[in-house]
Amino acid sequence: MSETAQKVISGDIRAAARLISNIDNGLTGVRDILRELYPHTGNAYVIGITGAPGVGKSTLVDRLIENLRKRKKTVGVIAIDPTSPFSGGAILGDRIRMQRHSNDKEVFIRSLATRGHFGGLTLSTRGAIDVMDAMGKDYIIVETVGVGQDEVDIVKKAHTTVIVLTPGMGDDIQAIKAGILEAGDIFVINKADRAGVEKAMTDLMVMLDMGMNNGDDMKWHPPVIKTVAPEGKGIEEVITEIERHRSFIIQKRGNINPRRTESGAREELLEMIKGRIMEEVIGRLEKDDAFNVAVESIRSGEKDPYTASDEILSSHFL
Amino acid sequence: MSETAQKVISGDIRAAARLISNIDNGLTGVRDILRELYPHTGNAYVIGITGAPGVGKSTLVDRLIENLRKRKKTVGVIAIDPTSPFSGGAILGDRIRMQRHSNDKEVFIRSLATRGHFGGLTLSTRGAIDVMDAMGKDYIIVETVGVGQDEVDIVKKAHTTVIVLTPGMGDDIQAIKAGILEAGDIFVINKADRAGVEKAMTDLMVMLDMGMNNGDDMKWHPPVIKTVAPEGKGIEEVITEIERHRSFIIQKRGNINPRRTESGAREELLEMIKGRIMEEVIGRLEKDDAFNVAVESIRSGEKDPYTASDEILSSHFL
Repeated sequence: MSETAQKVISGDIRAAARLISNIDNGLTGVRDILRELYPHTGNAYVIGITGAPGVGKSTLVDRLIENLRKRKKTVGVIAIDPTSPFSGGAILGDRIRMQRHSNDKEVFIRSLATRGHFGGLTLSTRGAIDVMDAMGKDYIIVETVGVGQDEVDIVKKAHTTVIVLTPGMGDDIQAIKAGILEAGDIFVINKADRAGVEKAMTDLMVMLDMGMNNGDDMKWHPPVIKTVAPEGKGIEEVITEIERHRSFIIQKRGNINPRRTESGAREELLEMIKGRIMEEVIGRLEKDDAFNVAVESIRSGEKDPYTASDEILSSHFL
Repeated sequence: MSETAQKVISGDIRAAARLISNIDNGLTGVRDILRELYPHTGNAYVIGITGAPGVGKSTLVDRLIENLRKRKKTVGVIAIDPTSPFSGGAILGDRIRMQRHSNDKEVFIRSLATRGHFGGLTLSTRGAIDVMDAMGKDYIIVETVGVGQDEVDIVKKAHTTVIVLTPGMGDDIQAIKAGILEAGDIFVINKADRAGVEKAMTDLMVMLDMGMNNGDDMKWHPPVIKTVAPEGKGIEEVITEIERHRSFIIQKRGNINPRRTESGAREELLEMIKGRIMEEVIGRLEKDDAFNVAVESIRSGEKDPYTASDEILSSHFL
């Protein structure tokens, strides 16, 4: 086993941080280390926290960390939300608030910057989760803005997905209808001391009821929880519901490792194959002058891009 | 030339609508029709309208359509925003408001639903723009939520990108910093009758100034415009700035067709190659039992996904 893998498994923070940043930058060699870590993964519980910018996700995460630490649990945080103070994108006050965990050795916070093509973000997130999992973190919190296909794919990797809303943002509830509502295991209405909280509760519950088959006892019924994160209100309830959802999953699937399900294994394999092929394609095209010639033929109007791509494909790949 | 292509070029709405929905659904045969349309494209002016849910993008689009129609211009609208009333995702009042254009033959509105993998959304949007362009629309407005890599890629295809914000959403301005700010040619602060509009203006202008090389006269300086879309306030100014930006592009590039630039041609060719390869990969994997065997080996814990994907790749593709 490589030294890096050994260090990560022993919980070495610097080795883990370097590995995650190498994953994020798509460096070669990373796959071999992840392969070594793989047998040591599958034990962490992954919580996805998702919601529009400004709903207070980061403060909520901060409070969840605090609560989990009181329970003597170790925590990893992966910030994908570009506006998160965890990833450095927020106003000063938030950033200072976050730093209170930075001296706690059992809290490991990393942000992922890559927004590159080739499904890079999904694979980097999977890799970062694996690193923290192999380090032995009990809980891994993934914070995302939750819009766009990439982010929906990431949210699907969490064991429990928490969708955060605020009152008075009627359009937001409309927005989550498209795609992400189905991914929500727990709904949090944060900033619940603001006007409109009851209406937001009602709207959301009506919407959730519509998606429900109420006769099916084996189906998870997503709870809606009101929180005021800066005051810590409702945080205990969020943790309780996360634990209840965890028990539900274990009862239903027999384990918490999504790779040990047919659909989880299928999805991950497909993602890896696609990522690798894209790498290969880009690599071959970069080395080849035919691509530049084709670009010029489109630019000059000599060829249309359909014909040009057909020609490249038939001579290089298919 | 195919009958469909002929009909689209002659402006036939039903043929165009069917073609766009076939593009969106990824039907085969669509590429051949797009190839036929290609020589008839490159004349429409594409305006991207982007911003978070709830900022009032659709009302703004509605008013822009109205203004352009008064100038006797024909308009196409492509709604990618899942919350847009144009794509059916909004509250009743908005949807009714939009319908006032539905009897105007020179306004052609379509929504794209595909949020599939393989960069599908970017290619579908490119295809829908080409169809409307070939129909002879003077302006094509693309409305997106503007978060996520897919949407940033789409925004980059517009000649002029309008980023819509509202006052009092400080976090929103933080959010656009990451990735999308650079794509904005015009900034609109909508709902400018609300409190906080001056602060939003100042914040935004400070941020824009930071990104500016003020000594460079050949650089576009994005204007910031205040609007109250339901009352039509500021709309004329938005159109004026769009026209000013159009003149700027023509002066700088010599034409408005992005495919006739090296970077535009390169990007489109790469996207097409990637899309085609992904189609091919999925097609081959679906037909092959080795993929299912590999999935089962991951699920059972016999193999890790890195090894399994290596094996599939070396036996099938590389």
